[in-house]
Amino acid sequence: MEKLNVIILAGGVSSRFFPLKEKNAFKFLGQNSLEFHISQLKGIETDIFVVLPEDTTISEESGWTKILQEGSGMAGAVKSALKEIKSDGEVLILNANDFYDNSLVESFITTREKLKEDGNALLTGYKTAKYFPGGYLSVEGDYVTSIVEKPGEGNEPSDLVDIVFDYFPSAKTLSRYLEKANSDKDDLFEVALDNMMKDGVKFRILQYSGDWKTIKYPWQVLDVTEFFLNQIPSQQISDKASVSHKATIKGNVIIEDDVKIFEGAVVNGPAYIGKGTVIANNALVRESIIGEGCVVGFDTEIARSYLGNNVWLHKNYVGDSVLENNVSFGSNSVTGNLRLDEQEISMTVKGERIKTGRNKLGTIIGSNVRVGVNANIMPGVSIGPGSFVGPNINLDKDLAAGKFITVKQSVQIKDNTFDISKTSREEIKKKLG
Amino acid sequence: MEKLNVIILAGGVSSRFFPLKEKNAFKFLGQNSLEFHISQLKGIETDIFVVLPEDTTISEESGWTKILQEGSGMAGAVKSALKEIKSDGEVLILNANDFYDNSLVESFITTREKLKEDGNALLTGYKTAKYFPGGYLSVEGDYVTSIVEKPGEGNEPSDLVDIVFDYFPSAKTLSRYLEKANSDKDDLFEVALDNMMKDGVKFRILQYSGDWKTIKYPWQVLDVTEFFLNQIPSQQISDKASVSHKATIKGNVIIEDDVKIFEGAVVNGPAYIGKGTVIANNALVRESIIGEGCVVGFDTEIARSYLGNNVWLHKNYVGDSVLENNVSFGSNSVTGNLRLDEQEISMTVKGERIKTGRNKLGTIIGSNVRVGVNANIMPGVSIGPGSFVGPNINLDKDLAAGKFITVKQSVQIKDNTFDISKTSREEIKKKLG
Amino acid sequence: MEKLNVIILAGGVSSRFFPLKEKNAFKFLGQNSLEFHISQLKGIETDIFVVLPEDTTISEESGWTKILQEGSGMAGAVKSALKEIKSDGEVLILNANDFYDNSLVESFITTREKLKEDGNALLTGYKTAKYFPGGYLSVEGDYVTSIVEKPGEGNEPSDLVDIVFDYFPSAKTLSRYLEKANSDKDDLFEVALDNMMKDGVKFRILQYSGDWKTIKYPWQVLDVTEFFLNQIPSQQISDKASVSHKATIKGNVIIEDDVKIFEGAVVNGPAYIGKGTVIANNALVRESIIGEGCVVGFDTEIARSYLGNNVWLHKNYVGDSVLENNVSFGSNSVTGNLRLDEQEISMTVKGERIKTGRNKLGTIIGSNVRVGVNANIMPGVSIGPGSFVGPNINLDKDLAAGKFITVKQSVQIKDNTFDISKTSREEIKKKLG
Repeated sequence: MEKLNVIILAGGVSSRFFPLKEKNAFKFLGQNSLEFHISQLKGIETDIFVVLPEDTTISEESGWTKILQEGSGMAGAVKSALKEIKSDGEVLILNANDFYDNSLVESFITTREKLKEDGNALLTGYKTAKYFPGGYLSVEGDYVTSIVEKPGEGNEPSDLVDIVFDYFPSAKTLSRYLEKANSDKDDLFEVALDNMMKDGVKFRILQYSGDWKTIKYPWQVLDVTEFFLNQIPSQQISDKASVSHKATIKGNVIIEDDVKIFEGAVVNGPAYIGKGTVIANNALVRESIIGEGCVVGFDTEIARSYLGNNVWLHKNYVGDSVLENNVSFGSNSVTGNLRLDEQEISMTVKGERIKTGRNKLGTIIGSNVRVGVNANIMPGVSIGPGSFVGPNINLDKDLAAGKFITVKQSVQIKDNTFDISKTSREEIKKKLG
Repeated sequence: MEKLNVIILAGGVSSRFFPLKEKNAFKFLGQNSLEFHISQLKGIETDIFVVLPEDTTISEESGWTKILQEGSGMAGAVKSALKEIKSDGEVLILNANDFYDNSLVESFITTREKLKEDGNALLTGYKTAKYFPGGYLSVEGDYVTSIVEKPGEGNEPSDLVDIVFDYFPSAKTLSRYLEKANSDKDDLFEVALDNMMKDGVKFRILQYSGDWKTIKYPWQVLDVTEFFLNQIPSQQISDKASVSHKATIKGNVIIEDDVKIFEGAVVNGPAYIGKGTVIANNALVRESIIGEGCVVGFDTEIARSYLGNNVWLHKNYVGDSVLENNVSFGSNSVTGNLRLDEQEISMTVKGERIKTGRNKLGTIIGSNVRVGVNANIMPGVSIGPGSFVGPNINLDKDLAAGKFITVKQSVQIKDNTFDISKTSREEIKKKLG
Repeated sequence: MEKLNVIILAGGVSSRFFPLKEKNAFKFLGQNSLEFHISQLKGIETDIFVVLPEDTTISEESGWTKILQEGSGMAGAVKSALKEIKSDGEVLILNANDFYDNSLVESFITTREKLKEDGNALLTGYKTAKYFPGGYLSVEGDYVTSIVEKPGEGNEPSDLVDIVFDYFPSAKTLSRYLEKANSDKDDLFEVALDNMMKDGVKFRILQYSGDWKTIKYPWQVLDVTEFFLNQIPSQQISDKASVSHKATIKGNVIIEDDVKIFEGAVVNGPAYIGKGTVIANNALVRESIIGEGCVVGFDTEIARSYLGNNVWLHKNYVGDSVLENNVSFGSNSVTGNLRLDEQEISMTVKGERIKTGRNKLGTIIGSNVRVGVNANIMPGVSIGPGSFVGPNINLDKDLAAGKFITVKQSVQIKDNTFDISKTSREEIKKKLG
C-alpha cells in the first residue's frame, strides 16, 4: 500500500490556554501531543505534515515535516499542508489536540482499503449521549449526509459529534474543493465538504465510542491527564529509580529513571513520575502526572493534578490543579479545589467567565511562579507566568503575568504580661505514646 | 421478682447544648444515651418509660415507652411517667445524661431486695473530693438525712454529690407526695423527698466512686467521649473492615464494618471508628470517637475529639473538639486548643461566659458546616449549624447558626522585577536523600 | 611534662547574639562550648582557667577555675587569668566560641615539646581561599612575621586567618609584654605580640585546614550545629530509648536516653536527639540538633535547625532556624527559609542590617516564646525572649523581647443562603482507596 499523507493540525493559537503556554508542547507521560499522534500511527506507512503556528517553540524532528500555517482556520491549515504534498495520494487529517485511544486508528486501518477502492471519504463521529457544543453528523446508514454546527441541546441530528479524523482518497480533489469554497465565516473547510457531498462524493461514517478528550481551555489539561493515566497498562518502575521499601506504590504507575521515593511516601496509581523527580517522606501522589526534576516535598499531597518540570512543593496540598514548569510553593500553601457551596467552578478566559463543568478544580499556574508560605489559592483562580504570590494570602482573583502580589496586614503590639516560663507541660507529655 | 418500673428522664431542653442539637440523640460508640442506659439495665426485668421533650427527634422503639413531658422540672417529668405506671410497683428514676459504669447498677441490684422488704427508698451519692455545683447528701450511717442544694465550696455536708439514681418501693406513694408538694421554685421533687423523710420514710444511701460524667454543656461531650473510650475492653476490628498492614492500630480500639484504614495511618487507642469511615494515608487518630461515613483525610490528626457522621477532614488538626454531623474542613485548617498563656478556657452559653474547667479545648461545631482552607478556630469558639467559614480566617468569636463569615483582605500588586527562571536549585536537590 | 596552663576566653558580651542568650551556655550534642574545649584537651595534663563575664549563668565545675573578666578586650581577659597562674609555666590561649576538630589539638601536642625546647611561641592560621574579615598572618617559612587586621579582600598577606589558639612558653614573659603594651584602640594583645616579635621572640605557625566555625551572630549557631553533626562518627541509639520498628533512623544519629520515636517518624542523619525528647508519628528530623524534653509533634519537619530544651512543635515546618528553650508553635505554623527571589538573607543586629551569607535562613527565637496556630515567620526575622505571636500572622519584622503581637482582621458576616445538608459526597468517597 502506498504511504498515507497525514496532516496534523497544530496551528491554532493558544490564547485561551493562558496562563499555560503552548498546548502542543505540553507533555503527558513524557510525550507531547504530536509525539502521541505520531506514535499512534506507527502501524501505518505515513508521510506526516504538522501544521504549526508561526511562534511555535516546537522544532522539526525526523519523522515529520514542519509546516507553518498560512491563512486562517482549518481550511488555511489544510491548504498550507496540501501545498507540500506532491503526489495525488490519500490524506488523513487530524487535530493535535484531540486524544482518543488506539481503537479509533485501528478501525480506520481496517476500513481504509475498502474506502480507497470505492473512492469514498470518511468522517468520524464520537458517540455520546451528553450534549457537546460542536459539530454533529447527520447520518443515513453508513454514510454522513451533512454536518450541523452547534445544533443546541435537544436538536442534535444524531448522537455523533464530529471529531477531526477525516480521510480523503485524493489530495488533489480535496485541494480543488478547498480552493473553490467560499464563505463569509470561518467555515471554509465545512463548506468544501458540503460541496463534495452535493457533488456525490460519499463520506462513510466511522463511529467511535471510546474515551475522547480535547484541549482548548487550560483546565482540560486535567481531562487529558486522566485520559493518559488510564492508558497506563501496568506498574513500570525503572531499574534506575530508587524506591524505599517503606514507600507504597499501588496500581498502574510509571516511575522513570533516577526517581527517588522516600520512606512513608505513597504513590497511588494511576500516576506518572518523570525522570529525576523526588517524592519525599510521607508525601502522597494520586491520579497525577508529575514531570521531570520535581521535588514533591515532605508531607505534600498531589491529587488529580498535572505538574510540569522542576516544580518544588513542600507540605502542600495540590488538588485538581495544573502547575507548569519551575513553580514552587512555600510550606503549608494549598489549593482550594471545592467551593464551600460545592457548586460548579468557573474560570475567566480572555475576559469572559466560562463554566468549567467541574465542581472540583484547583488552580492553573504558568511557568516560573513562586508562592510564599501559608498562602491559599481559590478554586478556578489562575496565576500568570513569572509572578510571585506573597505569604499568607488568600488569592481569590486571577493574577496576571509578571506581577508580585502581597497582603497588607495590620498588627498590634503590646507588652506581654504573662510569664510562660513558669508553666509545665509534663502532664501532657506523659500521655504521649 | 416483679418488673421494675424505670423512668429515664430525657426531657430537658438542650438550649445550653448549642451549637449541638439534641443531647439524647448523641451517639457514643454507636449508641445514644437512652440505648446506653437501657443496655446497662439489661440484667433486670424492667418496664422502661422515657420522658422526652415535645420537639424530640427520637422515636419510640421496642423495649421502652415514649412519654412526652408535661409540666416543668424533674417533678413534671416524673409525674408524666407515673401516670402511665398502672401497678403500685417499685420505681427507679435516672437521668439520661448521667453516665456511670456498670458497678453502680450492680450495687443497686444487690441492695434492691432488702430495700423492698424494708420499704426503704434509695438515693445515690457520687463520692468526690472536688467541689461540684449540685446537690449534696447529708448522711447518718447508711441513711440520707437531707439534700443540700449547692452548699458552696467548703460547706459540703459530706463528700457525696446527689446523682439521679433514685429508688422508691411504691409508685403510688411517690405519686402522692409529688401531688402534695408545694414550692415557689423549681424544686418540687426535692420538696417531696424532704416531706417523705420528715414522715419517716427511710432513704438508704448508695455510694458510688467510679467514673461519673454528665452532659449539660457542649464541651462535656468530650468528658463523655473519654468515659466511653475508657469502657472499651480490648481491640475489636470488624472482619469487614480493611486495614493496611502498613497502618498502625494500638490499644483498645473498636473498628466497625466497612472502615478503610490506609498505609501510614495510626489509630492510637482508646478510639472508636464508625461504620464506613475512611482513615486516609498518614492520618493520626487518638483518644477519639469518629462516627459513620467520615473521611479523616491525608495527614489529618484527630486528638481527644468527637466527630459525628459524614465529617470530612483533610490535612487538618482537630484537638479537643466536637464536630457534629456533615462538617467539613478545607485543607490546612486547624483548631487552636490551648491558649498562648495556657490558662483555663471559657465558652459563651446563652450569652453568658462559663468557665469550662479545661485548659485544653478546641472548637464546638454544629451540623452542616463548611470551613474553608487555611482557617483557624480559636479555643472555645463555637460555630452554629448551617454556617460557612471562609478561607484564611482566624475565627476568634462564636459564629451563629446559618451565617457565612469571610475575611476582608487588602492586597498590593506591583510588577515583579525578578526573573526567577534563571535560578537553579540543583545544589539543594543533591542533598536530598 | 609539667601541666599546661590553658586560658579559655569566654568573657565577651553576647549582645550581638540577641535574641539568644549566652553563647557559652549553648549546648551542642549535650555539651556547651567550655565542655567541648575541655574534652578536646583531655589528652594533655592541664590547669584550665575560664574567663567569663560578670553576668554569666555558668557556674564553676571541677576541672577548671572560673575567672571573672576585669578590663576589656582580649588583653583584659588574658591578664585576668594570668593573675591566677602562679608558676612561670607554658600558656595556651583559646577562644570558647571557636570550633575546630581534634586534628588541631593533636598537631599542637606534636609540636609542643620542640616549642618549649626552642623557647618559641605559636600562632594558628586557618587555611582558607575565601576572604574572612579578621586578622591574617604574614608568614616566612615556619614563622609568623606579623598579624594584619582585616586587610580587605585581595590584600591578604597569606591564606592564613588568625585563629585564637596561641601558645607561649612562659606565662611571666607574656604577662610582662601585656603590662607594657600601649594603644588607643582595643588591640593591646596584638600590640604585645608585635612587641615580642620585634624583640626577637619567634612565633611558629600552626596551619590548620579542617573545619572551623565561630559564633558571634545568632545564625552562626547553625554553622556550629552543622560542625558538630559532622563530628558524629556513627549511629548511637541509647538502650533506654524507645524507637518504633516502623520509624526510620538513617545515617549518623545520636539518640539519648528516654527518647521516644513513634511509627512513621524519620530521623535522617546527621542528627542529635536529646534526652527525653519525643519524635511523634510521621515527623521528620534531618540535619538538626534537638535538645532535651522536646516534643516534635505529629507531622512536623525540622530541617537543618537547632532546638534547645522543652521546645514543642506540632504540624510545623522549621527550617534553618534556631529556637532556644521553652518555645512552642501552634499547629500549621511555619518558618519561611527562602526568599521568593531566592537572594541572600540579612538580619538586624543591634540596629544594623547584616548580611548573613545565607540564602537559606529561617528564624531565630529566644527562650519562653509562644507562636499561635497558622502563623508564619519570614526569613531572617527574630523573636525576643518571653514574647507571644498571635495566630494567622505573617511576621515580617523582628519582635522585641516581652511583646505580644496580634493581627487585626476585618471580617464580614452575612446570612448563608446555601443549604449544604442536601449535597452528597458519596461519589468522591467511592474513589478513595
